[in-house]
Formats: sequence, C-alpha cells, structure tokens
Amino acid sequence: MKIKAGIIGGAGYTGGEMLRILVNHPDVEIAFVNSTSNAGNLISDVHTDLIGDTDLKFVGDIPQDIDVLFLCVGHGDAQKFLTANPINDNIKIIDLSQDFRLIANRNSEISNRKFVYGLPELNRDAIKSANNIANPGCFATCIQLGLLPLAAKGLIKGEVHINATTGSTGAGQSLSTTSHFSWRNNNLSIYKAFEHQHLNEIGESLLQLQPSLTDALSFIPQRGAFTRGILAATYLESDLTLEEAQNRYEEYYRTHPFTHVNRKNIDLKQVVNTNKALVHVEKHGNKLFIISIIDNLLKGASGQAVQNMNLMFGLEETAGLKLKAAYF
Amino acid sequence: MKIKAGIIGGAGYTGGEMLRILVNHPDVEIAFVNSTSNAGNLISDVHTDLIGDTDLKFVGDIPQDIDVLFLCVGHGDAQKFLTANPINDNIKIIDLSQDFRLIANRNSEISNRKFVYGLPELNRDAIKSANNIANPGCFATCIQLGLLPLAAKGLIKGEVHINATTGSTGAGQSLSTTSHFSWRNNNLSIYKAFEHQHLNEIGESLLQLQPSLTDALSFIPQRGAFTRGILAATYLESDLTLEEAQNRYEEYYRTHPFTHVNRKNIDLKQVVNTNKALVHVEKHGNKLFIISIIDNLLKGASGQAVQNMNLMFGLEETAGLKLKAAYF
Amino acid sequence: MKIKAGIIGGAGYTGGEMLRILVNHPDVEIAFVNSTSNAGNLISDVHTDLIGDTDLKFVGDIPQDIDVLFLCVGHGDAQKFLTANPINDNIKIIDLSQDFRLIANRNSEISNRKFVYGLPELNRDAIKSANNIANPGCFATCIQLGLLPLAAKGLIKGEVHINATTGSTGAGQSLSTTSHFSWRNNNLSIYKAFEHQHLNEIGESLLQLQPSLTDALSFIPQRGAFTRGILAATYLESDLTLEEAQNRYEEYYRTHPFTHVNRKNIDLKQVVNTNKALVHVEKHGNKLFIISIIDNLLKGASGQAVQNMNLMFGLEETAGLKLKAAYF
Amino acid sequence: MKIKAGIIGGAGYTGGEMLRILVNHPDVEIAFVNSTSNAGNLISDVHTDLIGDTDLKFVGDIPQDIDVLFLCVGHGDAQKFLTANPINDNIKIIDLSQDFRLIANRNSEISNRKFVYGLPELNRDAIKSANNIANPGCFATCIQLGLLPLAAKGLIKGEVHINATTGSTGAGQSLSTTSHFSWRNNNLSIYKAFEHQHLNEIGESLLQLQPSLTDALSFIPQRGAFTRGILAATYLESDLTLEEAQNRYEEYYRTHPFTHVNRKNIDLKQVVNTNKALVHVEKHGNKLFIISIIDNLLKGASGQAVQNMNLMFGLEETAGLKLKAAYF
Repeated sequence: MKIKAGIIGGAGYTGGEMLRILVNHPDVEIAFVNSTSNAGNLISDVHTDLIGDTDLKFVGDIPQDIDVLFLCVGHGDAQKFLTANPINDNIKIIDLSQDFRLIANRNSEISNRKFVYGLPELNRDAIKSANNIANPGCFATCIQLGLLPLAAKGLIKGEVHINATTGSTGAGQSLSTTSHFSWRNNNLSIYKAFEHQHLNEIGESLLQLQPSLTDALSFIPQRGAFTRGILAATYLESDLTLEEAQNRYEEYYRTHPFTHVNRKNIDLKQVVNTNKALVHVEKHGNKLFIISIIDNLLKGASGQAVQNMNLMFGLEETAGLKLKAAYF
Repeated sequence: MKIKAGIIGGAGYTGGEMLRILVNHPDVEIAFVNSTSNAGNLISDVHTDLIGDTDLKFVGDIPQDIDVLFLCVGHGDAQKFLTANPINDNIKIIDLSQDFRLIANRNSEISNRKFVYGLPELNRDAIKSANNIANPGCFATCIQLGLLPLAAKGLIKGEVHINATTGSTGAGQSLSTTSHFSWRNNNLSIYKAFEHQHLNEIGESLLQLQPSLTDALSFIPQRGAFTRGILAATYLESDLTLEEAQNRYEEYYRTHPFTHVNRKNIDLKQVVNTNKALVHVEKHGNKLFIISIIDNLLKGASGQAVQNMNLMFGLEETAGLKLKAAYF
Repeated sequence: MKIKAGIIGGAGYTGGEMLRILVNHPDVEIAFVNSTSNAGNLISDVHTDLIGDTDLKFVGDIPQDIDVLFLCVGHGDAQKFLTANPINDNIKIIDLSQDFRLIANRNSEISNRKFVYGLPELNRDAIKSANNIANPGCFATCIQLGLLPLAAKGLIKGEVHINATTGSTGAGQSLSTTSHFSWRNNNLSIYKAFEHQHLNEIGESLLQLQPSLTDALSFIPQRGAFTRGILAATYLESDLTLEEAQNRYEEYYRTHPFTHVNRKNIDLKQVVNTNKALVHVEKHGNKLFIISIIDNLLKGASGQAVQNMNLMFGLEETAGLKLKAAYF
Repeated sequence: MKIKAGIIGGAGYTGGEMLRILVNHPDVEIAFVNSTSNAGNLISDVHTDLIGDTDLKFVGDIPQDIDVLFLCVGHGDAQKFLTANPINDNIKIIDLSQDFRLIANRNSEISNRKFVYGLPELNRDAIKSANNIANPGCFATCIQLGLLPLAAKGLIKGEVHINATTGSTGAGQSLSTTSHFSWRNNNLSIYKAFEHQHLNEIGESLLQLQPSLTDALSFIPQRGAFTRGILAATYLESDLTLEEAQNRYEEYYRTHPFTHVNRKNIDLKQVVNTNKALVHVEKHGNKLFIISIIDNLLKGASGQAVQNMNLMFGLEETAGLKLKAAYF
C-alpha cells in the first residue's frame, strides 16, 4: 500500500521539485496538491515539464486522508498554515520553510507538534522516529555537510571561513531585479555577508555535535550566474593531516548513501539534478580546506524532504531518489 | 558648440544605452534626462555601470533649451507624450517607440510634426534633412538590412522566409515569467509566429524600394538564451549567382559605415555592443540565404538613434559610435 | 533475469548518458563499458557525476556474454567496429552513429546484419522484432516528430521550411572554437544551411509514410547558447484547420508514451533531461506551423536507444526512462 | 603626432582587446601586429568583431620604428621573446605576461631593461617615468585594489581572507575541458586554492606600502560561469568604523580616474567591458569586508596596459579608455 502524500504550496519551485520526484516514487501516491492561487488548474499547466507525467489538478482544500503532508511554503507561512489549518495528529508533516528549524522554534504550541531538524547526516535516528520534520535550509545543508565530520570529533577550532555561491532558483520564482535574466546572466554578486539567516541553524547543528564550540562562522553568500546548485568553499585551521582528514570524512559518511567524499577536485554540476552531496578535502599549510556541493532544490530542499519521508516511513533511504544527473 | 540633447524615459534599457553612448559623444552635451519615476535620483543609481561617468540626476520636468529630444519610451507613450507636452518647433525629435514608424502614422497631427523612418541604409538623405525621426524596430532593422539590396533592384520574388532570434533585452526591463533567469537560462522559445508587429514596417520599406512587391514575408521570432543581439536567417528563391548576390550587397552597403558584408560565415557576438550590422550571403541551389546580425539595443535602438542624430546635425555619421565590441 | 548490456565508446557524451540511464534501469545489468582510451579507469573518473552510482571500470575488451550492445561511437566508427570485431549473432545491436540509418546502408554485409531505423513513432512494430537498430539522429528525430502525423496521411504538400537550434552537446565533447565557453556563451550561429546530413534520413522517413512526396525540405540548423535540447520551428502550407491539425497530431501520437501534443506554446526546457518530445501546432493563414522539442542526448540519442531496447526485449516502453526533468 | 604602437602576440585574447582599444585611441597608430601563427592573415579574420574597424594584417616580423611595444604573450614567453629579439632601447615595453612582475624578476639582464610594476593606483609616478612596465595580473589587480588603501596606512592586521571568481577569458583561448561550453555553462569550481601564483605579486605590493606586514593572505580562486570579469570578496579584522573605512578608501582613490568607491553594494557587470574598478566596503562586527570588481581583460590586462602607456607618454590617463559598458 502506497504512502499517501499531500503538498501545500505546490506551484512554487520546491513544490514543483517535490512533484517531479513523487510522480516517479515507487512507494508514494500523490493524494493532492494544494495551491490557493491555482486551484482547479492542471498541475502541468504550471509545471509545464510535467506534461505526460500527471493529469492531476491543483486543489484549494486540504483533504486529511493522507499519511504525510509536505509544506512547500514561504518562510513564516508554515507557522501560519498550521495555525489556520488543524491537521490530524496521525499525519506526519515535513516542512520546507525555516519556521521550525531553530531549537527555539521546534515545538509548535498551536499545533502541538514537535519538529526534528531533518538533516539525515546529523539526525538520522531521530528522523526515523519523528512525526514532524523541519527540513534544513539549502546553504545550511551544504555548509554543514562540509563540517559535520569535524564537529563530531570536536575538531573545529578557531574561526571557520565560508564562501558559498547559489543558483538563481535559491531565491524562488518571484520576480525581482536580481532574478532578471538580463541582470543575472554573466553576473556575480554578494548579499547578506556575515549575516545570512542560515548561520543560526548551522551553528546549532555544530554545537549539537561539539558542545564546546565557541568560534565564529564567517559566511559570504554569493549569487551565481547559474540556475541550480550551491558550492561552498570552507576553511579553518586544523592539526589533521590530509590523510587523517580524508579518513575522518569518509568514515563519517560511510553509511550515508547520498553524501560522498571525493579525493579529486569537484565541480558544481556533478550533483545537479540529483539528491547527492559531494565533499572534497585539501590541506594547505595548517589550513584544512573543504569544498562541498549540493543541488539547492534537491538535497537542499525537496530531495532531502523525500529522503526524510523515506526514513520516517521505514523505506529504503534512496527510494525514488535515484535521479538521472544533468551533468551538462 | 555642442548639441544639447534631452532624453525622455531615461531609466529604461534604451534610455540607459543612449546615456552610455552620449556620455562619451564628442559633440553632444546631455542637457537633461527625464524620468518620472526617478526624478531627483542620480542616474548612476539606476544605471549603476555609469558610476564615475556622470554625476547627472534624473529630472521630472522637460527644459526646452535643447537641440534634440530622444523619446526612449514604450510603444504608445511617444504619441501620448507629444500630446501632453508641447515641444518647441526648433527641437528635433528622435522617437525610439513604434508610434510613428508606419506611413499612416508618420504625420503627428497633434504636434504638427512629420516623421521620417530613420533607417540610414534606406533613407539617409531624407534623414539628413528631417526634423523628426521614427527610429526603426530592432527586428525590423536586422531583417531589412538582409533584404534592402535585393529590393533596391526589384529582386525579391516569391515568399521570403525569416527566422530571427533576439536577446532578453529586446523585451525591456519589465519583469515577467519569460524574463526570469531561471526560466530563460538555457532555454529557447517562439512567440508571435507570422504575426510580429515589425512585419509592417519591414513591408513598407521593401515596397518603398520595390513597389511591385506582392509576396509574403513569413517571420518566426525566437527568444534566445542571451542578453543582447539579433540574428536573422532569411531565404528566398533567386536567380542571382552567389557572386552576383555578394556584389549586389557589397555595392549597396559600400557607403554605409556601419553595415558590412562578410563573405565568411558570421556569429552573433561579432556585433554585440557595437552599432555595426554584418550581413553574410550564401547560395544553395536556387535559394539565396542571408544571415544578418545587429545588437538590438544599439543598431536596433539607441545606437541607430544617435546615428540618425549625427546625420540630422551634419556630423560625421560615426561620431560617438566607434564602440569597443564585447566579443566575449 | 536482467538484460545484460555492453557499451562501446562509453567515455563520450552519448555513452555517458547511456550509463546515467542504465545504472537505474530496473531490467538491465551493465555488463561492461568499453573505452579504448580509458580502459582500467573508473567510470566515475570520467563521468564524475556518477560517483556513488557505480564502481564499474572501463574495459578494453569486448566480452560476448551479453544480450545487447550499444555502439556509442562517432560517425563512421560503427561500421569500422563491426568489421574489426565479430559480434555473436544472438547479441542485439543498437547503433547510435549514423552509419546504418539510410536505406542504402541498412544491410551491413560484413557483419551480415540488417538494421531497422529506430524511431518508435515511425517503426515501433518493426523495432519490436528487430535484432539491430540504427538509432536516429537528434535533429532528425525532432524534425520528424513534427511532420510524421502529416506524412502518414499524405498531407505534406509544398516546400517544408525548418529552422532548428541545438545545444552544445550536439557537437560532442571534442574541443573546438565553437565549443569554447568564451565563444558560445551568449552567442548564436548557423552552420550547414540547407545541407545538413540529417536531411537524408528525414526525407526517407517521410517517403516511407507518403511515397508521393516530391517537395523539398529547407533546413537551417543553428547553434544555440545552451547545452541540451533541440527546438525545431517548421511550417508548410496546409488546408487543415487548426482543429483538424491538432486532432491529427493527437491521434497519431495517442499510443506513443513519450511524444505529447500540447495545445499551448512550448519552450525548450520542458523536455530537458527527459526522453519526452513535445509538439505544438498553430495555424496562421494558410500556414501550418509546428514547434517540436526534444533533449538531443536523450530522445535524440541515448534515451531513444534505451526506448528501442525496451521494445526489442518486450519491456514496458518507458522502463528506466521516467526521468526527472531539469526544468531550471 | 601619434604614438606608434607594435603588438606581439596579437591573436590571443589580450592581443585582441589591445586592438579593440587601440583602433579607436585618439593618440595611437597601430604600427604592426605580430603573430607568428597568423602572419599574412587579416586581423579581422581572427578577431572577427573588428570587421570594418581595421584592414591591417598580421605580420611575422618586428619593425622597430615604433614608440611602444606591447607583449601580449604567454607566461614565460616575454622573457624568451626579449632574449631572442633585441628591441631598440628607445622603444618602451609594456609586458602583459607575468615574467617581470616580481621584484626578483624586474631587471631583465639580457635585455638590460628595468621594469616597473604597472599598477597606477600603487605606482603612478614611477610609471610616468618608466621605460618598461610589468603589467599586473588580473586577480592581482582586483585584490590589490581592495587592499591598497589599508596598506597605505599600515592598517592590515591579521589574516586577510580572499575569495575571487574569474570569467572564462581569464584562462585564455586555449581549449581545455574546463573551457568547454558544455562543462562551464551553469558550473562553478575552485582551483589552486591557497596557492595561486598572483599571491606573490599581491604580497609584494602590500609590503611596499606596509613594510611591517607579516600576515598571511588566504586566497581561494574560483572559475565562474561567465566570460568576463573578476569579483573579489575580501575580509579582515579591523578597528576602523565603517565611516572611517569608507573615507579611507575614497581618499585613497580620489585622484584615480578608473577606481571608484561605491557606498552601495556592487555587482560584477557594472565594470564589464570598461577599464573601471569598483570597490565597496562594509563593516560587520569587527570584520571589514571589501568587494572589488574589474574586467579581467581590461583593467586586469589590456586596458591597464593602455592606461600605463597613457601615463608613460604624458597623455590624459583616460585617453582611449572611455569605453561603453556592456551592462547586459
């Protein structure tokens, strides 16, 4: 019997990616896709690449005969949604917004739900028994995957320096000056230097593994001239040799099917359109240098949400997520 | 003494390109740049690549102590502007909208001005003595430059087949689904097949040279995954040999400083960021095949407007228009 | 029991795409991947996005305990390969080169094999019983899908006008001036106007359906500033109304799972990274206008090869080919 | 009387940009353009965007009746060239390779020439009286412009963290995997982390201004999915307030016509196709954060070479360098 899934906010980028995954997921039936602005329209009229894949239409209501509900809504809207729409207790919730990610926000009083931070490489066991998941942010996922193996052994010492570049889909489908093709094509820019909101969830995860951590994270986010993916370049001082560091990373990720340590240099497109993360480690003098890459919409959003669902329902972790890469 | 130029609609793409040309034009002084939405702001706050090039601010009024007024406004707005704002008779007007391009629209009753269609390769003498110019459309310019040498000798016989692809700046800076980077990057699409509004001005120009013309123009406009430029691929049946055709084109453009016939194949970026047009002719069986390329914002808009100004004021035709290409 | 597949030429683009599909195909086991230049190397060292998906290495020999052999080699090299390497008669061959596509070349005397032209929308029944497939060209596939419904009813009358634009992967991974990023980014160009080699296979397919056909195909191939996909814009004169034409296309493709007729306008990225084709029909005056789109590496190459394999082995036609699109 | 300029290595990217500038430079006559591989060919056959701008051909010899010689050759080849080709003492040399940039290399024994490091914002007076210029590297220029105002007052304290991304033209026109459009489009990657050769020239310049400097520069170079430009993101600890820092930068660059301090955030395309540099300063906690941008081929190569020539010959520093930006 298939898992019945509902989607809230199905007309946006993460909602669309959720649909692109779930239409081919062997263990899931899409019960409904809710979109207030598109109720009654064919899903393939909005996500026009789904022509031939689904005849579903968006609905305006929220049927409750489902097993799991994905909240593909904007930041702040998940909290509002759960306040306005009582959801049956037996329905698991996976929220892709940032509303329940931070420790202070993980208990939703109104809905009486407790959320687990859904990064499988950090919290897999807790996810398996969770009823509610706060799906991590895209930058946060990419950067944490570059640092978790160190934090797990208390090896983060001194300031961590991070520069990470995201594709245009990271900003959603809203129209703005910086999302205009004429502006973004061939361009590069920086925003929210040192002040990106994902620093908080990264910091909390590192503290979970390395409670003694007191050092700063310096993070420069960049907007790249590409549509998909995040590449994070991270470094810190370390006593580990290159060999020790590589072994540390390989050991940490050995049982994690989507995150791979590569001893050769990596480039962003190796993971585009997949749920994979690649991590590459170098040593230069006393600096440990880590490159980590993900697809912001998959491992950084909808793919990881499905990975979490798989874990919560006892499925193979990779079910429905063996995706053909789009290397070119 | 420098020509004093005013610009209406200076905050848009064509207004910006006008400014980028005029700040370095040796014979022009920018008297004012009008923008209702930006009055009081620095021009370099809107066109941020002009930092260091000009300290001018947008104004909200329309001083009349100028020699020439460029209307860089949307289609329909030039007509409205001249109705609402009487402009002194001694001020020449160059309108970049489509309002006065067609024969039926060239006499503006309200403003009592007669407009000349400002394609120098067609109407150079008339432009020199004109007081008002209707600057041609971008697709129209590119396509006409591929056909004028034939029409001038009555050599267009049978249907003309045109496929032309434009960059994203052709649609202006307004935000829309098709201008979103995530959509347009790596994409290609077609719009207004057989029905693009520029077909009318192309048809009128060809008839001016070849009054007997009765054949249809079939025109497929495409949206390309690039920001600047138009490439038109045109063919028709012809009795001319390749040599005769090349000679015909070279003869026609011999005295025109911006339009060059190239006997080797051409690619779009050869003209990007310049006021040049390149035309290449091939013969395949009984088909004469013509490739023509321009920068849609320069030879297809603001550059041609300045070229027209140069002709109207007796300047060197190329003054201020020897622009560094951006081949990569 | 799984079908055992061998791949010749596994290091190129089509070989890589074949691998990206087959690693997740439920009914196929990759027996070996041959690459003379990469024998002994990990496949994931060459196709670096396959890290984590396969531990296979390239081999230099050609084991014969397989069910099907894919020839992912350059044009001319398939013929040479079969001459130099006897392949057991019980192994089916699917050739992605152009060597056996044309009627005059479909019988390989040296290898004593007869090839069927592998376009399922044209020859599905013949493919099901074929032992050897000549996989169609990418442009040829896209253009034929725009014309087959007409030819099947003898409705192609008069010249057919085609302009089609391909991504950079269409030219393979060899390095050349026109494949350099600095050249191709933001660029557009034309090559082999009226003389592209795919015209022959298109012509043969149309004649197969409409033997009376005598009219010319005029085909302008373009190089676009994108990596994947082909968009073909095709028109001809027709007496069909729009409704009749749409019905004709929908009827023709009703049983074909990958080719869909869309009544709304389409854009290239709707099919990128999938095996789908979309066709859209418009009527303008007496012109029937058809837009058709495919991914050149999938429906135009490796995806179609797997589709043919599925048909040859009695599998579901879509097995292993329900691919997640990469709409952005 | 015009300055007569010769160019060695005119067929490459920097040679092409030199030509694009010099064809319109009011005070320069291009005496010859040497290219061993293209001798006898039209320059516009190689730099095809120069059609209509010059009828010059490449030459194979090196006439000596010139005033200045630009060496647009690969690294290592300038040294070899001067060894093999004696150049008259009265000819000034501007070398765009890295051969004479470092202090240890500035005296060329073989040619008996002393080179001045040609960064006008650092060495303008020395450049004015120099006979030989070592033109700075592109990354080096961009990064130095972000740090010179601090070094000039001894304000660099503690480690400096730099992440800078370059366009594809930075790697020249040679064909390689990472210059292939199919690879680089939509991609991002890192190379030579902490070990880029430009670190040496940056370090020497900073020491020239701040001899006490002992701190490390950590530099991560990135390859971006664009053709032109470098954006450097730099930070270090600082006691300066934001206001003090901005004033410091503005004061330092007040007399430098190409480098501008912008109090608003900046994006790469603001300087593309110009010789300008923009610098933007922010303060976050105790971190001083600096963004600097240049066009790698202009301010980072050929434009700066012409700027140096202007200074050496007593011309206006901006002569021939008021270039139209290509903001889109």
